Amino acid sequence: MSAGAIFIWELLGTAVLILLGNGVVANHVLRKNNGHGAGTLFITFGWAFGVFAGASIAAPSGAHLNPAVTLGLAISGKTPWSDVPYYILGQLVGAILGAVLCWAVYKLQFDDHPEPAETLGIFSTAPQIPNKAWNLVTEIIGTFVLVAWILLSPAYAASGGTPNFGNSALGYAGVSFVVLVIGISLGGPTGYAINPARDLGPRIAYAFILPIKNKRDGNWGYSWIPVLGPLVGGALAALLYLAVHNLT
Amino acid sequence: MSAGAIFIWELLGTAVLILLGNGVVANHVLRKNNGHGAGTLFITFGWAFGVFAGASIAAPSGAHLNPAVTLGLAISGKTPWSDVPYYILGQLVGAILGAVLCWAVYKLQFDDHPEPAETLGIFSTAPQIPNKAWNLVTEIIGTFVLVAWILLSPAYAASGGTPNFGNSALGYAGVSFVVLVIGISLGGPTGYAINPARDLGPRIAYAFILPIKNKRDGNWGYSWIPVLGPLVGGALAALLYLAVHNLT
Amino acid sequence: MSAGAIFIWELLGTAVLILLGNGVVANHVLRKNNGHGAGTLFITFGWAFGVFAGASIAAPSGAHLNPAVTLGLAISGKTPWSDVPYYILGQLVGAILGAVLCWAVYKLQFDDHPEPAETLGIFSTAPQIPNKAWNLVTEIIGTFVLVAWILLSPAYAASGGTPNFGNSALGYAGVSFVVLVIGISLGGPTGYAINPARDLGPRIAYAFILPIKNKRDGNWGYSWIPVLGPLVGGALAALLYLAVHNLT
Amino acid sequence: MSAGAIFIWELLGTAVLILLGNGVVANHVLRKNNGHGAGTLFITFGWAFGVFAGASIAAPSGAHLNPAVTLGLAISGKTPWSDVPYYILGQLVGAILGAVLCWAVYKLQFDDHPEPAETLGIFSTAPQIPNKAWNLVTEIIGTFVLVAWILLSPAYAASGGTPNFGNSALGYAGVSFVVLVIGISLGGPTGYAINPARDLGPRIAYAFILPIKNKRDGNWGYSWIPVLGPLVGGALAALLYLAVHNLT
Repeated sequence: MSAGAIFIWELLGTAVLILLGNGVVANHVLRKNNGHGAGTLFITFGWAFGVFAGASIAAPSGAHLNPAVTLGLAISGKTPWSDVPYYILGQLVGAILGAVLCWAVYKLQFDDHPEPAETLGIFSTAPQIPNKAWNLVTEIIGTFVLVAWILLSPAYAASGGTPNFGNSALGYAGVSFVVLVIGISLGGPTGYAINPARDLGPRIAYAFILPIKNKRDGNWGYSWIPVLGPLVGGALAALLYLAVHNLT
Repeated sequence: MSAGAIFIWELLGTAVLILLGNGVVANHVLRKNNGHGAGTLFITFGWAFGVFAGASIAAPSGAHLNPAVTLGLAISGKTPWSDVPYYILGQLVGAILGAVLCWAVYKLQFDDHPEPAETLGIFSTAPQIPNKAWNLVTEIIGTFVLVAWILLSPAYAASGGTPNFGNSALGYAGVSFVVLVIGISLGGPTGYAINPARDLGPRIAYAFILPIKNKRDGNWGYSWIPVLGPLVGGALAALLYLAVHNLT
Repeated sequence: MSAGAIFIWELLGTAVLILLGNGVVANHVLRKNNGHGAGTLFITFGWAFGVFAGASIAAPSGAHLNPAVTLGLAISGKTPWSDVPYYILGQLVGAILGAVLCWAVYKLQFDDHPEPAETLGIFSTAPQIPNKAWNLVTEIIGTFVLVAWILLSPAYAASGGTPNFGNSALGYAGVSFVVLVIGISLGGPTGYAINPARDLGPRIAYAFILPIKNKRDGNWGYSWIPVLGPLVGGALAALLYLAVHNLT
Repeated sequence: MSAGAIFIWELLGTAVLILLGNGVVANHVLRKNNGHGAGTLFITFGWAFGVFAGASIAAPSGAHLNPAVTLGLAISGKTPWSDVPYYILGQLVGAILGAVLCWAVYKLQFDDHPEPAETLGIFSTAPQIPNKAWNLVTEIIGTFVLVAWILLSPAYAASGGTPNFGNSALGYAGVSFVVLVIGISLGGPTGYAINPARDLGPRIAYAFILPIKNKRDGNWGYSWIPVLGPLVGGALAALLYLAVHNLT
């Protein structure tokens, strides 16, 4: 696939993912919404099936939607290193676009919100208890589960190169179930970024693009943890894959 | 397929969709119900799997169940323009029938409800914060995601004409997951009509057919937004499809 | 398949369905349970995936698990009338057995419950607002949706005789999604029996078999509605099937 | 498959299962978590899709992840008895490893928790009403449903030996739905261990390995019930399978 096609598909899929993922948090957080205060299960379902929707759309490029996935697939030999920059660029631009679309959907609710300084949490993650080392550990383990599943589950493990679900409408339901359970089970301490583009793109959109009045800064002191942690987790999963995939 | 068959299948599928979708809101809103006050996740599950049930039944006609889907499929060349009127007529009549059936299921609860003027919300959507332009934007983006997914996800994209899941009992689970996440993530401001028939048909049933005492009018001033917004969103998704489908 | 095999598979599948379906209500109703007060979405998930578990086990006999389904399949010509008694007998005996197993799982909780007269609701349905005619309508429409889906959805409609999902682990997920949405959307007024065996079998177990102290009677005045309503709904769905299945 | 490969795959899959299963309880129980107090449906989803994630990863060894499943497959002739020790050892070591990883994810939350003596419940089960005989019955019936489904559902029943879902990304969704409904419907009284490794491994990790301050002992007086009950339930399900599998 051409570099341009990779860029476009990853951009489209990641935009849909972030529109839907940021959207569920906006629905829960901002008052005067049907889903205001709907809770953690609601939020984790939104992110999980946001992955399903975005990944189905980005099927032609393999639906990475996540630099940590791209890194894991590159280390494990399933994606050429020369394609990696186009994947990551598409993901980052798509994430920024998705955050802007989310803002447009909830524009009236943002204007109405009494504490706009709180709205960064709609776009990017923050730890419940800040501690750089252990927050990193949490993000590393969460992403490790995601990328290990992608590399080792039957449908992906069987494919030589880019994962391919062919003609199935439900192929990407599996990865959405895994994202659901990571959110439910490992999302408590840091909000499970598990994806550098998912966290950094909307943070950039919030800090530099969106016209939210009285908004806070981008919390840049924390911003590198949900980038580095997922990349380390994805790399470790690829090393595990390389270690075990000759066992069967 | 004959025009009559298209009409019948779309009517049946949309009637089931609206019966189940209006039904979950009735269960949540009306007191003396097992699901009274069950919440937003409950409501979004009802609409999502209402789509699954209705779409599975309407599989022979391609299970559009939604004029915005029909419009998107026509623009993208997957449904003949000459069939479009039969699709839309079946959807609208089916939506009215489904609303009547929902009323019959909950007849005793409607009679018991202390504030019948509130019951329009069971049948049709309304904005949390009224604003014609931004409410339109919300409906456009929500429907865009739905129709873009239908046109670009693997199972649909691979089919030359009308989507066809053949013999699978679960083929329509994918679209129901997408409707679930649209409700969860984009349904906050306007209640995600994302379907002109879903909103207009039950509104007609409420205003002109159902014998609910002390009911209010059909809120006609807002009624065109959940018709126009979805049609625009579906058309934009088809234009995206035409722009990108030669990239792969 | 022999009459004895039909009886055994339907008995096994229905026992599992009722064990799990009665179980979720016991978990919700009886205090000193992890799921005490867990709510309506919880209950509808329990019944829905109870159908999945029971139906998968009863796949060899076609997994009817419900006299209304058997009646609909017989009227539509998919199940021989001569097999109908064995199906229904297996379903009824299985439902009684499932209710007994549910009691055993929750025996300590039943003993601890302060108001054992309330425990009939764990086993059988009751209306929120008693009215024989409209309660019947609710049960008829709910069962109509279930049996219409079974007869018209792609996987079932394509099979000449008994539905057959072959080798799939997920074949019965579709019917469980439909049972989920019927519970969510149509279960408000009467608790969606939609299955004569599901309601009558546990009612018999409660009234005549289970050693619950200070229990009430079986509420026999209502008991015929969740038997007759589902049978009528299943028959109407079969008539619809016969009317439309030559349209495609 | 070699004994070493069985050990590695079962270890990996069970570690992921326990990381995610213990993780959801930690998220719910420990304060300063996004999922604090998220409830029973949340917890049952975490365990269910933890099974999906872990089982998909362990597909090469058949994804038992549970000594009760291994025992049932051995009695029914689907797994050689000579492989059983490697399965169980991998499961137990994996469960201990998963509990340690869960602790690392939630390390800051454990340190912050005001009542660390309560934290055993994150790792291992305990009865709501202690009674050795009836707690055993509850665990036996819950595990019986799990193993009976595995042996009798179409995909497993059709395979001569170790279950094999080939290339499907969703093959293990079925067993996760069954674990979901067992938790919802039968988990009230004892917390549905239904797996000796799931209960004993984390109990060992808690009592002997994890550096949680002021923790309590391992509640060893109860610890044999979630080991013995599941083994009896799995064996009974295998006997049922042997009795009925010639009926079809």
